[in-house]
Amino acid sequence: MHDPAFAALPQPPYYSVIFSSCRATVADGYERTAARMLELAAQQPGYLGVESARDAEGFGITVSYWASLEAISAWKAQAEHQLAQQAGQRRWYAHYELRIARVERAYGAAD
Amino acid sequence: MHDPAFAALPQPPYYSVIFSSCRATVADGYERTAARMLELAAQQPGYLGVESARDAEGFGITVSYWASLEAISAWKAQAEHQLAQQAGQRRWYAHYELRIARVERAYGAAD
Repeated sequence: MHDPAFAALPQPPYYSVIFSSCRATVADGYERTAARMLELAAQQPGYLGVESARDAEGFGITVSYWASLEAISAWKAQAEHQLAQQAGQRRWYAHYELRIARVERAYGAAD
Repeated sequence: MHDPAFAALPQPPYYSVIFSSCRATVADGYERTAARMLELAAQQPGYLGVESARDAEGFGITVSYWASLEAISAWKAQAEHQLAQQAGQRRWYAHYELRIARVERAYGAAD
Protein backbone atom coordinates (compact mmCIF):
# COMPACT_ATOMS: atom_id res chain seq x y z
CA MET A 1 0.00 0.00 0.00
CA HIS A 2 1.42 3.36 -0.99
CA ASP A 3 1.40 5.95 1.80
CA PRO A 4 0.42 9.21 0.05
CA ALA A 5 2.74 11.25 2.34
CA PHE A 6 5.69 9.65 0.53
CA ALA A 7 6.57 10.34 -3.10
CA ALA A 8 6.75 7.28 -5.36
CA LEU A 9 10.01 7.93 -7.16
CA PRO A 10 12.08 6.26 -9.88
CA GLN A 11 15.65 5.06 -9.38
CA PRO A 12 18.22 7.88 -9.07
CA PRO A 13 19.55 10.05 -10.53
CA TYR A 14 16.87 12.73 -10.42
CA TYR A 15 16.65 16.20 -8.90
CA SER A 16 15.17 17.65 -5.73
CA VAL A 17 14.18 21.13 -4.63
CA ILE A 18 14.51 21.42 -0.85
CA PHE A 19 12.38 24.37 0.27
CA SER A 20 12.73 25.24 3.98
CA SER A 21 10.53 28.05 5.23
CA CYS A 22 9.27 29.81 8.29
CA ARG A 23 5.72 31.10 7.94
CA ALA A 24 4.91 34.74 8.67
CA THR A 25 1.87 35.51 10.80
CA VAL A 26 -0.12 36.86 7.83
CA ALA A 27 -1.91 33.95 6.23
CA ASP A 28 -4.57 35.35 3.87
CA GLY A 29 -4.79 33.22 0.77
CA TYR A 30 -1.84 31.05 1.73
CA GLU A 31 -3.56 27.67 2.08
CA ARG A 32 -5.50 28.02 -1.15
CA THR A 33 -2.41 29.09 -3.08
CA ALA A 34 -0.27 26.33 -1.58
CA ALA A 35 -2.83 23.71 -2.62
CA ARG A 36 -3.10 25.24 -6.09
CA MET A 37 0.71 25.16 -6.51
CA LEU A 38 0.81 21.44 -5.63
CA GLU A 39 -1.90 20.84 -8.23
CA LEU A 40 -0.06 22.90 -10.88
CA ALA A 41 3.37 21.39 -10.12
CA ALA A 42 1.94 17.90 -10.64
CA GLN A 43 0.95 18.92 -14.18
CA GLN A 44 4.45 20.13 -15.10
CA PRO A 45 6.65 18.04 -17.41
CA GLY A 46 9.30 16.20 -15.40
CA TYR A 47 7.44 16.38 -12.07
CA LEU A 48 8.08 13.22 -10.03
CA GLY A 49 6.51 13.89 -6.63
CA VAL A 50 6.51 15.94 -3.45
CA GLU A 51 6.84 15.45 0.31
CA SER A 52 6.06 18.11 2.88
CA ALA A 53 5.98 18.61 6.65
CA ARG A 54 5.34 21.73 8.75
CA ASP A 55 5.57 21.83 12.52
CA ALA A 56 3.34 23.66 14.99
CA GLU A 57 5.81 26.57 15.20
CA GLY A 58 5.45 27.32 11.47
CA PHE A 59 8.74 25.84 10.29
CA GLY A 60 8.33 23.59 7.28
CA ILE A 61 10.25 21.61 4.70
CA THR A 62 8.83 20.76 1.28
CA VAL A 63 10.90 18.62 -1.06
CA SER A 64 9.74 18.34 -4.65
CA TYR A 65 11.33 15.87 -7.05
CA TRP A 66 12.02 16.40 -10.74
CA ALA A 67 13.44 14.52 -13.70
CA SER A 68 15.90 17.26 -14.68
CA LEU A 69 17.21 20.75 -13.95
CA GLU A 70 15.31 21.93 -17.03
CA ALA A 71 12.04 20.74 -15.50
CA ILE A 72 12.83 22.71 -12.32
CA SER A 73 13.62 25.86 -14.33
CA ALA A 74 10.38 25.55 -16.29
CA TRP A 75 8.37 25.21 -13.07
CA LYS A 76 10.13 28.22 -11.52
CA ALA A 77 9.23 30.26 -14.62
CA GLN A 78 5.57 29.12 -14.80
CA ALA A 79 3.40 32.27 -14.80
CA GLU A 80 0.96 31.49 -11.96
CA HIS A 81 3.82 30.07 -9.90
CA GLN A 82 5.78 33.30 -10.39
CA LEU A 83 2.92 35.27 -8.79
CA ALA A 84 2.80 32.82 -5.88
CA GLN A 85 6.58 33.11 -5.39
CA GLN A 86 6.23 36.90 -5.18
CA ALA A 87 3.39 36.70 -2.65
CA GLY A 88 5.36 34.11 -0.68
CA GLN A 89 8.40 36.34 -0.49
CA ARG A 90 6.42 39.49 0.36
CA ARG A 91 3.78 38.14 2.72
CA TRP A 92 3.73 34.49 3.66
CA TYR A 93 7.30 33.63 4.59
CA ALA A 94 9.41 35.36 7.21
CA HIS A 95 12.40 33.41 5.91
CA TYR A 96 12.99 30.72 3.31
CA GLU A 97 15.92 28.83 1.87
CA LEU A 98 15.84 26.88 -1.35
CA ARG A 99 18.40 24.27 -2.40
CA ILE A 100 18.53 22.39 -5.65
CA ALA A 101 20.19 19.00 -5.30
CA ARG A 102 20.85 15.98 -7.48
CA VAL A 103 19.68 12.76 -5.81
CA GLU A 104 22.36 10.12 -6.30
CA ARG A 105 21.30 7.32 -3.96
CA ALA A 106 18.02 6.37 -2.35
CA TYR A 107 16.71 3.63 -0.10
CA GLY A 108 13.93 3.10 2.40
CA ALA A 109 11.92 0.67 4.48
CA ALA A 110 8.28 0.24 5.42
CA ASP A 111 6.52 -2.15 7.80
CA MET B 1 20.04 37.45 13.31
CA HIS B 2 20.38 33.75 12.56
CA ASP B 3 17.17 31.76 12.95
CA PRO B 4 18.27 28.48 14.56
CA ALA B 5 15.66 26.50 12.60
CA PHE B 6 17.71 27.16 9.46
CA ALA B 7 21.15 25.67 8.82
CA ALA B 8 23.93 28.19 8.15
CA LEU B 9 25.57 26.63 5.11
CA PRO B 10 28.55 27.37 2.87
CA GLN B 11 28.26 27.97 -0.86
CA PRO B 12 27.43 24.82 -2.89
CA PRO B 13 28.48 22.22 -3.76
CA TYR B 14 27.87 20.14 -0.64
CA TYR B 15 25.74 17.11 0.15
CA SER B 16 22.37 16.55 1.77
CA VAL B 17 20.64 13.57 3.35
CA ILE B 18 16.87 13.92 2.96
CA PHE B 19 15.23 11.66 5.54
CA SER B 20 11.43 11.44 5.25
CA SER B 21 9.69 9.35 7.87
CA CYS B 22 6.36 8.43 9.34
CA ARG B 23 6.47 7.75 13.08
CA ALA B 24 5.09 4.56 14.54
CA THR B 25 2.84 4.76 17.58
CA VAL B 26 5.51 3.30 19.88
CA ALA B 27 7.65 6.15 21.16
CA ASP B 28 9.72 4.84 24.09
CA GLY B 29 13.16 6.38 24.01
CA TYR B 30 12.62 8.11 20.70
CA GLU B 31 12.88 11.75 21.75
CA ARG B 32 16.00 11.20 23.82
CA THR B 33 17.71 9.23 21.07
CA ALA B 34 16.73 11.77 18.39
CA ALA B 35 18.23 14.60 20.47
CA ARG B 36 21.36 12.54 21.12
CA MET B 37 21.77 11.84 17.37
CA LEU B 38 21.58 15.57 16.58
CA GLU B 39 24.26 16.17 19.20
CA LEU B 40 26.49 13.38 17.87
CA ALA B 41 26.02 14.33 14.21
CA ALA B 42 27.17 17.87 14.98
CA GLN B 43 30.47 16.43 16.25
CA GLN B 44 31.14 14.44 13.07
CA PRO B 45 33.80 15.64 10.60
CA GLY B 46 32.15 17.29 7.60
CA TYR B 47 28.85 18.05 9.35
CA LEU B 48 27.42 21.35 8.08
CA GLY B 49 23.97 21.62 9.65
CA VAL B 50 20.46 20.21 9.91
CA GLU B 51 16.85 21.30 9.38
CA SER B 52 13.84 19.32 10.56
CA ALA B 53 10.04 19.54 10.61
CA ARG B 54 7.41 17.04 11.73
CA ASP B 55 3.67 17.59 11.40
CA ALA B 56 0.92 16.67 13.84
CA GLU B 57 0.17 13.43 11.93
CA GLY B 58 3.70 12.10 12.54
CA PHE B 59 5.13 12.72 9.07
CA GLY B 60 8.49 14.44 9.17
CA ILE B 61 11.40 15.52 7.00
CA THR B 62 14.92 15.96 8.36
CA VAL B 63 17.61 17.24 6.01
CA SER B 64 21.20 17.06 7.22
CA TYR B 65 23.99 18.73 5.28
CA TRP B 66 27.53 17.41 4.82
CA ALA B 67 30.77 18.45 3.16
CA SER B 68 31.23 15.17 1.28
CA LEU B 69 29.85 11.69 0.61
CA GLU B 70 32.68 10.34 2.77
CA ALA B 71 31.40 12.38 5.72
CA ILE B 72 27.91 10.90 5.21
CA SER B 73 29.31 7.34 5.07
CA ALA B 74 31.30 7.90 8.25
CA TRP B 75 28.20 9.18 10.06
CA LYS B 76 26.12 6.23 8.84
CA ALA B 77 28.80 3.87 10.21
CA GLN B 78 29.19 5.61 13.60
CA ALA B 79 28.61 2.98 16.30
CA GLU B 80 25.99 4.69 18.46
CA HIS B 81 24.20 5.91 15.33
CA GLN B 82 24.08 2.33 14.01
CA LEU B 83 22.18 1.26 17.13
CA ALA B 84 19.77 4.16 16.71
CA GLN B 85 19.22 3.27 13.05
CA GLN B 86 18.31 -0.29 14.06
CA ALA B 87 15.87 0.90 16.73
CA GLY B 88 14.41 3.39 14.25
CA GLN B 89 13.80 0.72 11.68
CA ARG B 90 12.41 -1.81 14.16
CA ARG B 91 10.33 0.40 16.44
CA TRP B 92 10.06 4.12 15.79
CA TYR B 93 9.31 4.45 12.09
CA ALA B 94 6.41 2.85 10.26
CA HIS B 95 8.04 3.94 7.01
CA TYR B 96 11.08 5.95 6.01
CA GLU B 97 12.84 6.98 2.83
CA LEU B 98 16.37 8.32 2.66
CA ARG B 99 17.85 10.15 -0.30
CA ILE B 100 21.42 11.37 -0.67
CA ALA B 101 21.68 14.39 -2.92
CA ARG B 102 24.39 16.79 -4.06
CA VAL B 103 23.33 20.42 -3.54
CA GLU B 104 24.29 22.37 -6.63
CA ARG B 105 22.52 25.71 -6.18
CA ALA B 106 21.10 27.53 -3.18
CA TYR B 107 19.42 30.84 -2.46
CA GLY B 108 17.06 32.31 0.10
CA ALA B 109 15.48 35.40 1.57
CA ALA B 110 14.64 36.65 5.04
CA ASP B 111 12.72 39.70 6.27
